[in-house]
Amino acid sequence: MALNPNYEQIGKTFVQQYYALFDDPTQRSNVANFYTEQKSLMSFEGNQLMGRTKIMEKIQSLTFQKIQHIITAIDAQPTFDGGVLVSVLGQLKTDDDPPHTFNQVFVLKPANDSFYVEHDCFRLSLHV
Amino acid sequence: MALNPNYEQIGKTFVQQYYALFDDPTQRSNVANFYTEQKSLMSFEGNQLMGRTKIMEKIQSLTFQKIQHIITAIDAQPTFDGGVLVSVLGQLKTDDDPPHTFNQVFVLKPANDSFYVEHDCFRLSLHV
Repeated sequence: MALNPNYEQIGKTFVQQYYALFDDPTQRSNVANFYTEQKSLMSFEGNQLMGRTKIMEKIQSLTFQKIQHIITAIDAQPTFDGGVLVSVLGQLKTDDDPPHTFNQVFVLKPANDSFYVEHDCFRLSLHV
Repeated sequence: MALNPNYEQIGKTFVQQYYALFDDPTQRSNVANFYTEQKSLMSFEGNQLMGRTKIMEKIQSLTFQKIQHIITAIDAQPTFDGGVLVSVLGQLKTDDDPPHTFNQVFVLKPANDSFYVEHDCFRLSLHV
């Protein structure tokens, strides 16, 4: 498969859709649709999780009332199998805490005219 | 190809080797060996570069006398083609400037008993 020329748009659209669902408590459970049971890996602050079930358990276990991802920069690169690597830099606001810088990397893989998340790597960047 | 069970060690070793070369002005040009002309993509603060030649031009054009990458966290995940996704969070010190938080993502692909960098995505995280 070749490089997908629309990688920028695919990356940007995915990021917007993903965080719109994630930040809305009534819709958060729908981010499950981006993951697969067999081929999705997540690292969350160094904890490794494999498969949709365990990833969603982790996401649903996060303890905040309000959350907002504010995007600073999105870098997208086409992968040589028709997928897209997306690296997101942003500010995370939870409840009334001061915002934290975060970085989240996604590798999107093509399947059935759409994409699923094969890799998801989240890190808060604590300032020193 | 299957998941490489040594992904953690491969990611960690690569990161140490890469920055040891990068941070040493007498050795910096050797990071070229990690990239290929046909299948290496880099994003550097949003600038996109393809191929070893252009990537090395970018790296060699950076204007600092001293540079030091201090690693805060390395997240590695095995990819389903035997490669490794590596996300690095760290502090970058250049010359006498205050340190900046950076994030750099690498996708390592297997080739000839070793690995090359297929994707390299670098961002400074400017604090707001």
